Amino acid sequence: MLDKKINELKDYLKKYEKLNQAIALIYWDMRTNMPEKAGENRGELLQYLSEESFKMLTSDTVKNFIEDLSPYKDKMNKLQCRMLEELERKYNETKKIPQEKYVEFVGICSNAEIAWEKAKEAKDFEIFKPHLEKVVKYTQEFIEYWGYNNDKYDTLLDKYELGLTTEKLDKIFNELKVGIIEILSKIKESSKNINRDFLYGHFNAEKQKELSLRVLEKIGFDMKAGRLDVSVHPFTTNFGNKDVRLTTNYHEDEFTSALFSTIHEGGHGIYEQNISDDLEGTGLQIGASMAIHESQSRFYENILGRSKEFCSYLLPLAKEYFDDFKNVSLDEFYEAMNYVEASLIRTEADELTYGLHIIIRYEIEKDLINGRIKVEDLKKMWNKKYREYLGVEPKNDAEGILQDMHWSDGSFGYFPSYALGNLYGAQFLNTLINEKPDIFEDLKEGKFTEINEWLKEKVHRHGALYTPNELIKNITGEELNPKYFIEYLKNKYYRIYNVK
Amino acid sequence: MLDKKINELKDYLKKYEKLNQAIALIYWDMRTNMPEKAGENRGELLQYLSEESFKMLTSDTVKNFIEDLSPYKDKMNKLQCRMLEELERKYNETKKIPQEKYVEFVGICSNAEIAWEKAKEAKDFEIFKPHLEKVVKYTQEFIEYWGYNNDKYDTLLDKYELGLTTEKLDKIFNELKVGIIEILSKIKESSKNINRDFLYGHFNAEKQKELSLRVLEKIGFDMKAGRLDVSVHPFTTNFGNKDVRLTTNYHEDEFTSALFSTIHEGGHGIYEQNISDDLEGTGLQIGASMAIHESQSRFYENILGRSKEFCSYLLPLAKEYFDDFKNVSLDEFYEAMNYVEASLIRTEADELTYGLHIIIRYEIEKDLINGRIKVEDLKKMWNKKYREYLGVEPKNDAEGILQDMHWSDGSFGYFPSYALGNLYGAQFLNTLINEKPDIFEDLKEGKFTEINEWLKEKVHRHGALYTPNELIKNITGEELNPKYFIEYLKNKYYRIYNVK
Repeated sequence: MLDKKINELKDYLKKYEKLNQAIALIYWDMRTNMPEKAGENRGELLQYLSEESFKMLTSDTVKNFIEDLSPYKDKMNKLQCRMLEELERKYNETKKIPQEKYVEFVGICSNAEIAWEKAKEAKDFEIFKPHLEKVVKYTQEFIEYWGYNNDKYDTLLDKYELGLTTEKLDKIFNELKVGIIEILSKIKESSKNINRDFLYGHFNAEKQKELSLRVLEKIGFDMKAGRLDVSVHPFTTNFGNKDVRLTTNYHEDEFTSALFSTIHEGGHGIYEQNISDDLEGTGLQIGASMAIHESQSRFYENILGRSKEFCSYLLPLAKEYFDDFKNVSLDEFYEAMNYVEASLIRTEADELTYGLHIIIRYEIEKDLINGRIKVEDLKKMWNKKYREYLGVEPKNDAEGILQDMHWSDGSFGYFPSYALGNLYGAQFLNTLINEKPDIFEDLKEGKFTEINEWLKEKVHRHGALYTPNELIKNITGEELNPKYFIEYLKNKYYRIYNVK
Repeated sequence: MLDKKINELKDYLKKYEKLNQAIALIYWDMRTNMPEKAGENRGELLQYLSEESFKMLTSDTVKNFIEDLSPYKDKMNKLQCRMLEELERKYNETKKIPQEKYVEFVGICSNAEIAWEKAKEAKDFEIFKPHLEKVVKYTQEFIEYWGYNNDKYDTLLDKYELGLTTEKLDKIFNELKVGIIEILSKIKESSKNINRDFLYGHFNAEKQKELSLRVLEKIGFDMKAGRLDVSVHPFTTNFGNKDVRLTTNYHEDEFTSALFSTIHEGGHGIYEQNISDDLEGTGLQIGASMAIHESQSRFYENILGRSKEFCSYLLPLAKEYFDDFKNVSLDEFYEAMNYVEASLIRTEADELTYGLHIIIRYEIEKDLINGRIKVEDLKKMWNKKYREYLGVEPKNDAEGILQDMHWSDGSFGYFPSYALGNLYGAQFLNTLINEKPDIFEDLKEGKFTEINEWLKEKVHRHGALYTPNELIKNITGEELNPKYFIEYLKNKYYRIYNVK
């Protein structure tokens, strides 16, 4: 009976997956191909399919699967347990909110997104404020429906990173903050002068594309199971593990943006391509969490992509395409790729200071959701923290409080994933280097095979079979520990900036 | 009550439309963008969505709409009547076949398509024969379910061209056959020598693309509500009237193929873009029939696109892109574009001989479906008719009986639409010229506005609000009459070939 029921569930989940693949493909097309006038119809199309997907997830069929299977949990194998657990999680997350509330919220977010765009354009937080207030209010209400233990924000963290709490994250981020600020202050005292002029000039988009595609194949992205296209904001999406689509955006005035966003998205993409076929139709053929996903994109982008070893492969390649690098040495190239500067914009931040941008958002979100601060205080708070942690201050709201769109659709609790990705990545790296001390030598020849195999075996193939916490313990033998990332940063940046 | 019910039906049909738009978009992506390894998953995705679409069309909800609304037909306006009529047609066409039969048939066609590809590759009809026998057998069974009056083939014709019968079509095609053969025999006696050498050489694909896009915009295709991409076989698809997608295929060894397939698909596309917004969610925001659709593509491709007036606009443009045309005169260019040659391959046939290819298929299909000939006799029959009507004989099955894939998925009754498209087009042309005698002068300057407005007003905007028969009578004052096309052919080709 159990096997039969499990197979029925798998059939159902496979259909649910297919429907969501259709939505993802139609969304991808909207961002890459859609003609200008088709926007309204496309919105309706996506809304219709999303409603169907919502219905499938919150149906009595799902309720019955959960009720029928739950008594047999001790007879199930790991895969079956996780399958049921994830289904229950998603079902509850959706079902606990009254449908009319949810529909209202979707409308509010839709307006908030438009207001955010206008506000950013006008560099005026006041335009966005009333909308943000509503989004916060609804989010707080939703937390009441979902329930919480100690801290309301825990419920949001748990959505993106199963089992994560503010208690744990406070410790992690405090250690990270101290570490980054220590390194940053030493760098500020350094007399090292890094030249980046050769990264700016005119870089033909077609040539950038050729180079990006060559690098993408080199790092191990399978072009027979994926594509690289152009969109305003780079992203990765996939429809199963054999159709994984990345986008980038070529800026002709500088060299690194398109290439490294391609490598970043490539990391997400390689992860998706490597998830086991066996997980199809289980709801687990996805990344283990947002942070684990981000750990992979950042592993390829920063840990591998900006390593001195890979730079020594990349520089001659760059010279093939652009004369700008003719007289650039490996040291100059490597240092320019890893230039550190406390700055205002998160998405343009370097590997070192990036964490501080996230910690600022985390601290603000936590207080906001718990009602300790109000939306009207956000801007003051934001600017104060930027001054304090990074020593910079926004000249206007567009480069301050309005820079990210995440709050407009209520994605509170999401930002920490970005920073956690760096921590997971460095902890994976530590284990990798212990097991294979000379592995970075491969990068000098642009060889990624062995590293990819290791990541596939340890991380990728499992999809969401293990929780993030299980995964990091299985692989590294301990829970997430920020010390590995701080060590990695010190090792790298003290050397670059000649400090100790 | 009636209005309420009609609005409910519209809501239902709008959802059904959306689902089919999703399918069309996913299919388009498969033909243009999909990575190689994604084929299997894509097939499953399309199958799942097609099943959902099938369920929506054959649901009790639809049955109830039909039953509830049918008694009120005399109180409905034209739009409401046609809406119900088309729904009933589609419902019956699908519902009358037992579902298990239909599922078997889909499997048979899928295998037949693969067998057809192999057979064509091997140039061996024997590989395809057993599969075709099954497809024919099922088609004959389906006709029994659907019902028929005099001729079994009528049921198939009616699917693509509402109200068309073999009795009517025999007359039309006989007149057409006599006409074409008369013109063809005169051309064969002509001493006129047409040079086409300059159409062959090396034509850079990027340049062809630029030229095709320029011409596409000139003829009136709205690039803000559509796209042009590349696929192996050119086609047009759309998701509503504001997202219409054409494909073409650039062959670098010759000039006309990509350009004129772009203009052809552009004709289909302009039709779709011009269908009224008011028809959304009625099931009538589509072409009036396959043949009417084909009349528009051929109107742009042949009647306008290969006219001497448009050639005089096109030639200087072609010279901008390709030196090959440097010393080519307008007469030479125009004549090369309209070169007539009895040949073997339907898709490469000229405007004059094209009809004979269709008539051969029509005569064969009619006998085959009525059981007067067997699949094993097809090849002999095919070769005999090609010898008789066109004076050519296939050297192998790939350039004979296996050239088209239509039979592999049971599309019997579809071929006539192609030839009828030519007839409808010429009859529309006759009315247009009566109303606006000097209108072709516009084409010398690449101006299509007034012609497009006329076609939009008379044909396009109505979608499927009128049946093909109503449409041709409304516009030209009489039923479809092949004499207009024959007159058009005589006028054009007697002049080109200096005969009378």
